[in-house]
Amino acid sequence: MKIYVTITEGPLAGGRAVAIDGAGAAVVFEGIVRGMEDGARIAGLEYRVYEPMASRELTRLAEDVAGRHELIAMDVEHSRGTVPVGACSFRLRVWSAHRKEALAAMDEFIDRMKRDVPIWKSAVPSPAG
Amino acid sequence: MKIYVTITEGPLAGGRAVAIDGAGAAVVFEGIVRGMEDGARIAGLEYRVYEPMASRELTRLAEDVAGRHELIAMDVEHSRGTVPVGACSFRLRVWSAHRKEALAAMDEFIDRMKRDVPIWKSAVPSPAG
Repeated sequence: MKIYVTITEGPLAGGRAVAIDGAGAAVVFEGIVRGMEDGARIAGLEYRVYEPMASRELTRLAEDVAGRHELIAMDVEHSRGTVPVGACSFRLRVWSAHRKEALAAMDEFIDRMKRDVPIWKSAVPSPAG
Repeated sequence: MKIYVTITEGPLAGGRAVAIDGAGAAVVFEGIVRGMEDGARIAGLEYRVYEPMASRELTRLAEDVAGRHELIAMDVEHSRGTVPVGACSFRLRVWSAHRKEALAAMDEFIDRMKRDVPIWKSAVPSPAG
């Protein structure tokens, strides 16, 4: 476990990538492909995305979750095809006035995405087996 | 409310800034200074950080929260002094095997930081009053 703590004079460099008026909280979630899936070593994951339904469902879900949590903005990115171990396959960014709704929205969005959006993953076996 | 949805072929560009082995989730929280505080328009916030106690407490808190949620890594950055409206004054990054513990750890860390760490903020009044 690594812990880093830094106190900086004045604003922190490298702030939110996109300026969003009124946002007090900006949260970025990244899903990264891990080297093990169901106990077996893998080389990556293959995502099958059933389009255009997946994009339509993601948009509908984002609108619903963003509306219910009164978010200012939400940005969803998802991979399709092959993503190797250690690479990012999903990124969700939310901007809101306050922290609690940003974290709650993120949790709800990911739960519902996994359940409802037609994106399926399968393991790409590691060459070693 | 703005919604963006993108499906990308293969890995998403601009993945986690720091490579952390075994992480399946990387979450970044940024706190941004808003233009209103207690109903009044402000120019920024002034953070008083009582050192070295603040850094020591942040480190102790990070170790405790990271341990309880089995995080892989945690990075805490906090401003002191003046931070103008729209700029970032706090950034928390966590890496964990799975999503749920990353979000739960983030929420717990921020709650406890606000309660226990000797950092105080005061409004910098807007020139217009």
